[in-house]
Amino acid sequence: MNLAEYIEGRKEAHLEELKELLRIPSVSAKREHKPDIERAAKWVADKLRASGMKTVEIAPTNLHPLVYAESLEAPGKPTILFYGHYDVQPPEPLELWTSPAFEPAVRNGNLFGRGTADDKGQVHIHLKALESLRAVNGKLPVNVKVLIEGEEEVGSVSLWDYVKNNKAKLKADALVVSDTSMLGRGVPSITYGLRGLNYYQIEITGPSKDLHSGVYGGAVPNPLTVLCELFAKMHDKNFRVTVPGFYDDVRKLSAAERKALNALPWKAKDFKQTVGAPGYCGEKGFSVVERLWTRPTLELNGIWGGYQGEGAKTVIPSKAYAKFSTRLVPDQGPEKIAKLVEKRVRTLLPKTVSCKFEVLSMGKPWAAPFHAPIFKKAIAALEKGFGKKAVFIREGGSIPFVTQMYDTFKVPCVLIGFGLPDENAHAPDEHIALENYFGGIKAVAHFYADLATL
Amino acid sequence: MNLAEYIEGRKEAHLEELKELLRIPSVSAKREHKPDIERAAKWVADKLRASGMKTVEIAPTNLHPLVYAESLEAPGKPTILFYGHYDVQPPEPLELWTSPAFEPAVRNGNLFGRGTADDKGQVHIHLKALESLRAVNGKLPVNVKVLIEGEEEVGSVSLWDYVKNNKAKLKADALVVSDTSMLGRGVPSITYGLRGLNYYQIEITGPSKDLHSGVYGGAVPNPLTVLCELFAKMHDKNFRVTVPGFYDDVRKLSAAERKALNALPWKAKDFKQTVGAPGYCGEKGFSVVERLWTRPTLELNGIWGGYQGEGAKTVIPSKAYAKFSTRLVPDQGPEKIAKLVEKRVRTLLPKTVSCKFEVLSMGKPWAAPFHAPIFKKAIAALEKGFGKKAVFIREGGSIPFVTQMYDTFKVPCVLIGFGLPDENAHAPDEHIALENYFGGIKAVAHFYADLATL
Repeated sequence: MNLAEYIEGRKEAHLEELKELLRIPSVSAKREHKPDIERAAKWVADKLRASGMKTVEIAPTNLHPLVYAESLEAPGKPTILFYGHYDVQPPEPLELWTSPAFEPAVRNGNLFGRGTADDKGQVHIHLKALESLRAVNGKLPVNVKVLIEGEEEVGSVSLWDYVKNNKAKLKADALVVSDTSMLGRGVPSITYGLRGLNYYQIEITGPSKDLHSGVYGGAVPNPLTVLCELFAKMHDKNFRVTVPGFYDDVRKLSAAERKALNALPWKAKDFKQTVGAPGYCGEKGFSVVERLWTRPTLELNGIWGGYQGEGAKTVIPSKAYAKFSTRLVPDQGPEKIAKLVEKRVRTLLPKTVSCKFEVLSMGKPWAAPFHAPIFKKAIAALEKGFGKKAVFIREGGSIPFVTQMYDTFKVPCVLIGFGLPDENAHAPDEHIALENYFGGIKAVAHFYADLATL
Repeated sequence: MNLAEYIEGRKEAHLEELKELLRIPSVSAKREHKPDIERAAKWVADKLRASGMKTVEIAPTNLHPLVYAESLEAPGKPTILFYGHYDVQPPEPLELWTSPAFEPAVRNGNLFGRGTADDKGQVHIHLKALESLRAVNGKLPVNVKVLIEGEEEVGSVSLWDYVKNNKAKLKADALVVSDTSMLGRGVPSITYGLRGLNYYQIEITGPSKDLHSGVYGGAVPNPLTVLCELFAKMHDKNFRVTVPGFYDDVRKLSAAERKALNALPWKAKDFKQTVGAPGYCGEKGFSVVERLWTRPTLELNGIWGGYQGEGAKTVIPSKAYAKFSTRLVPDQGPEKIAKLVEKRVRTLLPKTVSCKFEVLSMGKPWAAPFHAPIFKKAIAALEKGFGKKAVFIREGGSIPFVTQMYDTFKVPCVLIGFGLPDENAHAPDEHIALENYFGGIKAVAHFYADLATL
């Protein structure tokens, strides 16, 4: 039986197995899900072992364990390090899911559930590709190392230490990652640039306790208003971030790259249909694609304070909170930006309140050339899986590990993503198109097979 | 046995009975507490009946029932209408209560629990004063009507209709209310002015669903940022509300009243100790007392949107919410202000978002002369209860019923409050000083007794 036939014959079984993993609510941001995180790590380790990987280990960290596996039975052949993550974003707001976040369901050719696209579905593509290769050929055509972490959605906080302490073990000729998106339906894509991510939380305190807004209103600082005034000042009217120095280290795009990015078959109509906002905005002087992939941002991710329940409560709360993040582009440095952002916040806040400023995570941006021979193999493999020629794109999201690996080992990083931009990663009704899940298994299996002749 | 001895001998029993009422979580803002609301109404009706009121009825409304009772056995004597409320504010944030909100507890001479000061404790003062008078004298010295509502904390939405439909029944020579505060410890106070209250809620929608802030950040409207920018524009740098026309109908204080208010034994030190903010702010050109009692405000009472859980979630939410309110002073009209506020909000919002604007409740401000003979009786009674001469104050809070009664019947409204400004009405650890609770029963009993000779 050849590889394509083997994969084709196991579609149902693959899907059922993926659903098992999706049912584990491995939400890395929440302490209460610690047992689920452990369960997901064990599930991944078990499947790696079942697929014939020789060494499989669950490595504890200060937060959530990493799963590492290797199969080094192809002497003289290249060594590939595959990276993915088994943790997922929180599922809230729960009421907006059509079917429950952790009860995977197929509708209209899509598999719905938290983690389907980001990143359990894509990790499973690789597990099944490796398993198929071994089943058909008896062994893997290349040397494979696999690292699946459980902290990607909280900034990969333990990963850097792990890489530093395991350099020899992780060394490979190339890094392969599937945690990105295709440019659009039917457009297989290879991502060569990612934005970095710093995530912040602030707590603003005015009065030392909640106050009656009738009895005290008009003569005390309201931390909710102060928070609003702060974030109103973080952008100017051209949607530029007003943090002094924020743009100092932004590398200018070459005219050629700018032209290439704007010439991609990216459809404004699809973008607007997915977003569905009454209007659009963004930094003046840049196209939407440039804004999304090549420009740094500052975005509020959550705000809260005071009464949020039904009806009315006339309170001036003691505290107001915000979670926000900056997306970074080459060559912005996360540490420098974090300092500048904190300075800006503290400068803008009035003396009527106090403020606790926390940096929850930091991650560097990444963009790299794509001339190495492995990229040709990737294009060929994607064509086998999808019948279309792949394009080279950048992405607005962040994968800290890619930057870390690139900086550490200076090897090509091949990011082949099987999600779609409108599949609600990080939002309710996250899903993956089944055609891309099954096409992905086929493409990835051919990719690993072809790498034997790299 | 005389009245003072009778009351003195029943202190423990009175306190235990009040605790029963405090244990009922009659939160009017929350649908889930509907059964508790019903239970509290019944409790109040039962106690009125037990105190010998002849007619006691629970009047259903579209929301929460009103309790009405009357005793008209003093022909030729004045008729007094006493008003209070049995509903309470939501207890959140629960974690900031030293003892649970609905498990009343005595500490350091104070009774703690939601509703102790606002307004169950103060309603109970009147119930026990009336019961004592009847027990000692066999009947009440004046005609008494009692109206205890269950919607005060949600804007008394059903009350106006009830008053309109029951004008003859509610007619009285004076209205007596205990739902305000004393100026400070040991300063019995009669309130002659209240601010009105309009309460609003807005929902701002940007994208039609939550989006990944990496994939979409920088090219879509973030409703959290839009909300911040909106409320940053609602005040100018002198802390004046920027709604056009907002101050047009504000009646200027007379020089005499301004002087009298600023001469009260109000202590900035106590105020600052209660509030405990790093700094203070308010409308330029007015003293703190003027800001609190005589100037209109716009305050945020709650904001929320996006991720509020532990850790990080990189989301651009679809929606952002705010609850906010305007406190009104004579002669601002609630309907006019609501229209001006909505217009301002809609004018300020960019076309990139849509907005749902709701007015949850409206209530008129009130301020009235205090020359009628009944005020002398109130001063004398307060002196019997507290050994001190009372002062005339205004208050920043709102009691819609007072305005409605004053406008409808043009009778004196006597607001004698037994709370203290630092007793955390609407906040965690709400309490009432036992000395004021017991002093209140004594003062109110003497007040009703003296009114026979009005």
